[in-house]
Amino acid sequence: MINRIFRYELPTIVEFGNGAAKTLPHHVRELGGSKVLIVSDPGVLRAGGVERLTAPLSEEQIPYVIYSDIEPDPNIESVAAATELAKTEGCDLVVGIGGGSSLDTAKAVGLMLVNEGNIRDYVGINKVPRKGAPVIAIPTTAGTGSELTIWSVLSDKKAKVKLSVGSPYNCPSLALCDPELTASLPASLTASTGMDALTHALESYVNKATQPISEGMSVQAMKMIARSLRTAVVQGENLQARHDMLLASLIAAMAFNPTRLGLSHALAIPLGAHFKIPHGIVNAILLPEVMTFNLIGNLEKFKEIAVIFGEKTDHLSLREAADLSVSAIRRLKEDIGITQTLSDYGVTEEALDMIAEEAMQSGNVPVNPVKPTHEDLKQLCRAAMSKTNAITAR
Amino acid sequence: MINRIFRYELPTIVEFGNGAAKTLPHHVRELGGSKVLIVSDPGVLRAGGVERLTAPLSEEQIPYVIYSDIEPDPNIESVAAATELAKTEGCDLVVGIGGGSSLDTAKAVGLMLVNEGNIRDYVGINKVPRKGAPVIAIPTTAGTGSELTIWSVLSDKKAKVKLSVGSPYNCPSLALCDPELTASLPASLTASTGMDALTHALESYVNKATQPISEGMSVQAMKMIARSLRTAVVQGENLQARHDMLLASLIAAMAFNPTRLGLSHALAIPLGAHFKIPHGIVNAILLPEVMTFNLIGNLEKFKEIAVIFGEKTDHLSLREAADLSVSAIRRLKEDIGITQTLSDYGVTEEALDMIAEEAMQSGNVPVNPVKPTHEDLKQLCRAAMSKTNAITAR
Ligand SMILES: [Fe+2]
Ligand SMILES: [Fe+2]
Repeated sequence: MINRIFRYELPTIVEFGNGAAKTLPHHVRELGGSKVLIVSDPGVLRAGGVERLTAPLSEEQIPYVIYSDIEPDPNIESVAAATELAKTEGCDLVVGIGGGSSLDTAKAVGLMLVNEGNIRDYVGINKVPRKGAPVIAIPTTAGTGSELTIWSVLSDKKAKVKLSVGSPYNCPSLALCDPELTASLPASLTASTGMDALTHALESYVNKATQPISEGMSVQAMKMIARSLRTAVVQGENLQARHDMLLASLIAAMAFNPTRLGLSHALAIPLGAHFKIPHGIVNAILLPEVMTFNLIGNLEKFKEIAVIFGEKTDHLSLREAADLSVSAIRRLKEDIGITQTLSDYGVTEEALDMIAEEAMQSGNVPVNPVKPTHEDLKQLCRAAMSKTNAITAR
Repeated sequence: MINRIFRYELPTIVEFGNGAAKTLPHHVRELGGSKVLIVSDPGVLRAGGVERLTAPLSEEQIPYVIYSDIEPDPNIESVAAATELAKTEGCDLVVGIGGGSSLDTAKAVGLMLVNEGNIRDYVGINKVPRKGAPVIAIPTTAGTGSELTIWSVLSDKKAKVKLSVGSPYNCPSLALCDPELTASLPASLTASTGMDALTHALESYVNKATQPISEGMSVQAMKMIARSLRTAVVQGENLQARHDMLLASLIAAMAFNPTRLGLSHALAIPLGAHFKIPHGIVNAILLPEVMTFNLIGNLEKFKEIAVIFGEKTDHLSLREAADLSVSAIRRLKEDIGITQTLSDYGVTEEALDMIAEEAMQSGNVPVNPVKPTHEDLKQLCRAAMSKTNAITAR
């Protein structure tokens, strides 16, 4: 790939470490904020996450308003309502705290405080005309990387589709990452969001748009996930593992921001939209099947993945070593309790044409290491529908 | 290190690839420049490097002025003169093209177009009050990473000292990296600048201020240097090797920007200032001695370095594996023709107290993995003064 000019940029400043959330008032001031809109979801609110921010803000006499009406699949109506609230209340800085849903919404609100019209007008890549209001993103899960990415994925509930807005202007001004905030995340959510982070690092690593800056980041993220995801799931209170996972998720986002992803994410979006499968789960279900399909596109890299995940490859051919990457990831996903299939979420043969058709529109398809046909996409879903198929495919 | 809050930022946008230099007019416009000051040195000017920029600028009718009175150790007088020229000519954007000297000067000029007084007022870290004029940095060597770093190192010729200005505001707006521009670099300069890049990646990797984002970058840079530095030296026209080295140098800078370096760089600055040893050479001479001194500070990482540079470590103890990193780097440096010692540049026992004293003031000392005494620093210099000592130390 030496004849391509690539661009790498990181519009977001990262502050990372235990206790980082407490430093919010300092950063609000640094970014010139005078009144804060906090965007969160009911779960984070109930668990006391929002209070971790409002206490120091009150202490520093920085006024704030809370919008917490965010659903698991955040929608464009929430963006409009939260933007309206921010305008009415005179907020000039947005703080998102939560998982991908809260952060994606907060980022979109930041954009809409400056740009005209409806967030729907900016769907696609690089469609946003102007930088938005400053946004501080505070993740409470380790997976989406939304605190750093150019992407907001929002639902249009009526149309039953997911809309993706991708722009450097949609990167938060600051990712304020505090591993302590992730320590109370339940095992199942730790597992699924962790598999999302892994899918980001891995799909970016093997795809056709990557370059060495992203490759270095992908490898680093995968190493940290290999050593810490299992521990984070089974020892939630282990702060070293939480630290690794939150940082790995962030680093994976640094990798995939300029590269996009692959077929797992291409399929995850319509499967998520139509069957309400949580994003991390659908990626975890698809990833081993997609790896099996993709590995002949780059044997060396799949061997490297096998090595990162602890497989012994010295005695093997390159082709055999690459194969081990698939069983290593399958074992990881099973170890952390993700044993579902697509069928468990009601996906049926009848739906596959629609899913494949919608997936084929994704910008994640052209960068995938192997070019898929419509039938290939259906076959990937079939393999992910049944436990038996999955084992045969291996 | 899980109890520390760290910051990671990348104020510079990277555009990288063959032919990238030709796209300069587009980027000048994007950054709002109406008239360009080109900062370069007589060597790059003679070799036609500047013409590669002026041709497309003229074609796009963007006016420019050239300042090319830069010496190998760029000085504060040049910064003042070039700033004066830019002001007189009404330039609002600075393009630096060349090695570290031209880029460090161009960056300082960008600062001084906006900030008051003399660049000397801003020596130290984070002393610059305001963002400067936009700077586009176009490297023609693969080593300093100046196209991305917060640092400008400038000489005060009268005082015989080097002054370091470090600030995120000193990062160029854009690093425009075109491997084709490095293809004509002579073997000796390819070797010395390449060893500078390696020293950046390695010193950052093992030091106490690093964190996983920088570690991932350091590993990636070292892998690329391990596979491509020898080839770039002996096959200058090999564009894949040039591509790797220019990108490795950039990635190393992404690693060390927030971490600083170690004892090689602490000693390289006074040794360079007093004995006029080229920066890459002095680092190459010192690095194996510093590694020998440092490795007990982090055996695992020195083993990892050995592995990256192709050593077989499976049958060895951790301590023995770590040792191999030193011989691997020593072999690399000798393979690419760097066989000098400090004595060859006139360094004598009498000078060592002064060198050690000045080195001890460096911000690179507190982050070094092993805390040195004044006598340790002198001993490191002694080992680097003689070929025999070097071999004994190993
Ligand atoms: Fe994802
Ligand atoms: Fe250096």
